[in-house]
Amino acid sequence: MTTVSVLGLGPMGRALAGALLDAGLSVTVWNRTPSRADELLGRGAHWAGTPAEAVAASDVTLINVVDHDVVDAVLDTAGPAVDGRGIVGLTSDTPERARHTATLVAAAGGRYLDGAIMTPAPTIGTDAASVLFAGPRSLFDSHASMFAELGRATWLGEDHGCAAGFDVALLDLFWTSTGGFLHALKVAQANGVGPSDLLPHALGIVEILPAVFTELTERARDGNHADSTAPVSSVAASLRHLIAASRDAGVGSDALQALKRSVDAVVEQGHGADEVTRVLDHL
Amino acid sequence: MTTVSVLGLGPMGRALAGALLDAGLSVTVWNRTPSRADELLGRGAHWAGTPAEAVAASDVTLINVVDHDVVDAVLDTAGPAVDGRGIVGLTSDTPERARHTATLVAAAGGRYLDGAIMTPAPTIGTDAASVLFAGPRSLFDSHASMFAELGRATWLGEDHGCAAGFDVALLDLFWTSTGGFLHALKVAQANGVGPSDLLPHALGIVEILPAVFTELTERARDGNHADSTAPVSSVAASLRHLIAASRDAGVGSDALQALKRSVDAVVEQGHGADEVTRVLDHL
Repeated sequence: MTTVSVLGLGPMGRALAGALLDAGLSVTVWNRTPSRADELLGRGAHWAGTPAEAVAASDVTLINVVDHDVVDAVLDTAGPAVDGRGIVGLTSDTPERARHTATLVAAAGGRYLDGAIMTPAPTIGTDAASVLFAGPRSLFDSHASMFAELGRATWLGEDHGCAAGFDVALLDLFWTSTGGFLHALKVAQANGVGPSDLLPHALGIVEILPAVFTELTERARDGNHADSTAPVSSVAASLRHLIAASRDAGVGSDALQALKRSVDAVVEQGHGADEVTRVLDHL
Repeated sequence: MTTVSVLGLGPMGRALAGALLDAGLSVTVWNRTPSRADELLGRGAHWAGTPAEAVAASDVTLINVVDHDVVDAVLDTAGPAVDGRGIVGLTSDTPERARHTATLVAAAGGRYLDGAIMTPAPTIGTDAASVLFAGPRSLFDSHASMFAELGRATWLGEDHGCAAGFDVALLDLFWTSTGGFLHALKVAQANGVGPSDLLPHALGIVEILPAVFTELTERARDGNHADSTAPVSSVAASLRHLIAASRDAGVGSDALQALKRSVDAVVEQGHGADEVTRVLDHL
């Protein structure tokens, strides 16, 4: 039977350990604040007094903490216990930090897999959960049945950074869109349009995004910026209005100005009639 | 019978004039480049040699040109013909420019309504079209049946700027989201994740936006930033990762940094546990 340790017992770490207990695995847990483990210990989890004890107790250790500064500190504490073990980072951070942790684990004689959990804690242990993995295929394969207890598990490639690459790209989209919506609420409000008046129209914009993103994806993949439906020059005009309207409303427009600089660079290079995907060269 | 003039015969202006001709109205058109009118004249439209002639020919004049610099220049050319007429601006620009045009029309003895066309030219003349209007209610009411020939016509309020306020807020959301997606494509690509690999996951993010935007709208409306599901302090951590990942990928992160400054200001004021809507005070 696979033995698994879980380091870090925030809401996500507790969900991970709980799903593994439900699957009947032998689970050892550690957390800086021990009381977070109480419920899991009641369900049969074993307590480890230190990260080293936790890593030593199991074939493979899952780490879900606040960021890779903490991942690396925990692994440093575990020290020689890492030798010969599988370590799976399930902590959100940058692709470079995932790659760096992989080198630390390798230097300590262990093997590292980086994972990105794409769905919220309540999904863990159900088919609605999606976890992406990056690193040695053989390490992924040897724990595939255990990962399947957490949710849909997908191996992306050998590069330790690519699960985090997915993660940051999707968080990027989420937070720029959400930040844009908050900005739009504020510009609207300054012009007498309340949040509830704007919402149905904003949802209409969200409805058209899948078709727009699909077209932009195909264009980016093919490097095809011709036969534009949204020529860069007209995007520049829109952005000019948006920046002026933000200023008039007393709202900052740094995000819009950043996009405008990329758009302007495209126009200056004589590609104003091209599709907006041309800005990919100037971001 | 209502007589209508249409100034500006780009794709949208031609769609507007065509829908009015289809409705059996008497339509007069003018455009800087006369050849754009050929097809409409063949369908029974009347040609005006100047903006003044066009405005003088009809009860009400619709103006759809590139921006309000051109709207104002065309109205200046029309001069005394504006006296006693209804002018309807259907040109995308800022709320302030809409209000400024209203003062110019009033000074010339006319009445002004500002409109924002929310849907593409091919929808005009169908129920799929949506046009928002702002300005004197009585002017809207007296032309409501003519506006209904263009699509769903909604009067928003007396403030001449609020139709453009809607327009810029929605364009703001569209372009920040789309710019965010292009940025995400580039960060992903730098980490070995191709556009077509990212797309299905990106569409998964778009799927959750309606619920997120609805919650943020209710919170913004009620000024309720407590009981957070996305506390500002964790947003700050995400943004820190995204900015670092952008830097590692050689991609600019000005838009993310702009949002981060607002988020940091909230944390500095001791509201890090609040919902992200708290940044509305710091944009």
